[in-house]
Amino acid sequence: MEQEVTFSLNDLLSYLASNKRELDKIVLDFLPVKSQNKEISSLYSMMRDYPSRGGKGFRGSLCLSWCQLFGGRREDALSTAAALELFQNWILIHDDVEDESDLRRGQPALHKKYGIPLAINAGDALHGKMWELLLSGKSSLGEAVAFQILKEFSTMLNETTEGQQLELAWGVQGDWEITESDYLLMVTKKSAWYTCTSPSRMGVILSSSFSASEVPAEDQKKLLQQLVQMGTHMGIAFQIVDDILNLTASQEKYGKEILGDIFEGKRTLMLIHLLSKCEKAEAERIISILSKPRQEKRVAEVREIYDLMQRKGAIEYAKQVADDHAKKGLTLFDSISREYRLESHSYSQITRRLLEFLVSRDY
Amino acid sequence: MEQEVTFSLNDLLSYLASNKRELDKIVLDFLPVKSQNKEISSLYSMMRDYPSRGGKGFRGSLCLSWCQLFGGRREDALSTAAALELFQNWILIHDDVEDESDLRRGQPALHKKYGIPLAINAGDALHGKMWELLLSGKSSLGEAVAFQILKEFSTMLNETTEGQQLELAWGVQGDWEITESDYLLMVTKKSAWYTCTSPSRMGVILSSSFSASEVPAEDQKKLLQQLVQMGTHMGIAFQIVDDILNLTASQEKYGKEILGDIFEGKRTLMLIHLLSKCEKAEAERIISILSKPRQEKRVAEVREIYDLMQRKGAIEYAKQVADDHAKKGLTLFDSISREYRLESHSYSQITRRLLEFLVSRDY
Repeated sequence: MEQEVTFSLNDLLSYLASNKRELDKIVLDFLPVKSQNKEISSLYSMMRDYPSRGGKGFRGSLCLSWCQLFGGRREDALSTAAALELFQNWILIHDDVEDESDLRRGQPALHKKYGIPLAINAGDALHGKMWELLLSGKSSLGEAVAFQILKEFSTMLNETTEGQQLELAWGVQGDWEITESDYLLMVTKKSAWYTCTSPSRMGVILSSSFSASEVPAEDQKKLLQQLVQMGTHMGIAFQIVDDILNLTASQEKYGKEILGDIFEGKRTLMLIHLLSKCEKAEAERIISILSKPRQEKRVAEVREIYDLMQRKGAIEYAKQVADDHAKKGLTLFDSISREYRLESHSYSQITRRLLEFLVSRDY
Repeated sequence: MEQEVTFSLNDLLSYLASNKRELDKIVLDFLPVKSQNKEISSLYSMMRDYPSRGGKGFRGSLCLSWCQLFGGRREDALSTAAALELFQNWILIHDDVEDESDLRRGQPALHKKYGIPLAINAGDALHGKMWELLLSGKSSLGEAVAFQILKEFSTMLNETTEGQQLELAWGVQGDWEITESDYLLMVTKKSAWYTCTSPSRMGVILSSSFSASEVPAEDQKKLLQQLVQMGTHMGIAFQIVDDILNLTASQEKYGKEILGDIFEGKRTLMLIHLLSKCEKAEAERIISILSKPRQEKRVAEVREIYDLMQRKGAIEYAKQVADDHAKKGLTLFDSISREYRLESHSYSQITRRLLEFLVSRDY
């Protein structure tokens, strides 16, 4: 990476792609392939399924980039970055069961291929492998840094499961009186931590274990706290953009069902805003459609809600909120970059581009 | 514990009960109770549900007892023992979903109370807390021992998920051509590791971190390997006894559905033996009953299979196999005890009684 002045979108895409290739290799080399027993071999195939399906490798890249920005070595962050990809994969297996999703990255969800019981168990097995990969990193990182990374994974998992609980419980209870602040708490926990906050913090933690570190230990705690703020804003923006893409992206690029969130009755910012802008009767009609079981919703009804979102400016509003959070997040990034005199560091630009990409992507 | 000569069944039961109380306290003090957010509070209630339901605390006790037998301190093994109880609880939440079980410890299974999506997520949250509890033990154990314990948890989870895969895949595929050796591989992985092998190994690992240790480091590896043999035999015996209890125990003591394994179509040693003793036509009839969905099986049909098991000596046969494995396991225990000159150690008797209890209990 020699770019000093400009790091174009193409540069970013090839940076992501090359990280993804390297992280995939680590993950797939680490996961078992074949057992003498055919059922156990089949478990291994299930564990390798989502990790083999592509994806952007964004979270792992963010971890690598923050580590290098703070003077750490890329090679020492690779196994943590790969474990972040494993985290995403096992949690998506369970997520897809919980949300009754049909598609993941353009193919049938794992439980659609193998049934719910085997999919839950494969998710647990992959979850175990995530910890095992982290534990194997001990020797190169030193025990203190390895422990700090393990604890960050534990924090990230606590936050993610709490966020998932919020969203699932609203669905189970048929609760539609969700405020924007409820929504922001949910996405902070469900998405922001594992998408942006923890990958960034892990990069910094990993950088501090090396002699080249530019962060004195006493400043680390303060910096890690700043990254919670930054990561929360960027992660919220990311999730809102993701939900907008569910409405507007092209099916081919997106890999999930378009308008699937409406079929699913998902509480998105657009929906919360739409409900707040409707008369009581209209809101009740929307809720009665959303409350139907997925397979009973007619395409025309789902379309109608989408059209209403457009007409009432809900999508524009959500774009604005995402934009505000993204701006706040990037401003925090810039102030961190200034505070540590890293503005001219090549990884300052790369990291900023990664963060921008979170909210500017079209797939 | 001052008993030198005899440690009666009553002594054992009160030893188990007092350990269980202490481990429950650690677990329930560690798990979060209340959040400002009511949905998150509800997640916390779900996480505390299984750990509040009783159980024998056998696995934690075994870890404590092995640790003390090898000169370790009880207080230093408590958090690992509590994490073993957490392991059992989160995995049972997922297990109950995977097996479509209705009851757990005399009450409705978690997913019966809250639905499958919330139960899967609560299991994941509890799983995360297991690692967090283990990570919090670092300071008192030292990093090297703490890492060894973490790795043992990772091994235990690999084995358990592979065993679960074997059993679930047989069910999904409708595979009834299971040999006794397939069965033994399945229970070794699914039950023996987390019930006996790993708790015993963890106890020894924990003992070696203290100055009072009686195991030189170079012998530890050999001893840990011996414990795999011992734990495998005892764990196999445990699971066979557990399956027999499902047929013969009193409902009140057992806390699960009697004959539930036949309703579930579970591949038990009794069933494998029965099928091997039947004419082709009879075996086909049994399989046709077992292959029906649970709710379509009539009580009379399930009874009929149970009666056949009795008539064909399948239960007697399974008792014999359990007994053989228990004898081999206990012989290995005695030889370890002799090898390390621990025969007169009070924890030698306690540990042996715990192992015997695995296979002699009536609930």
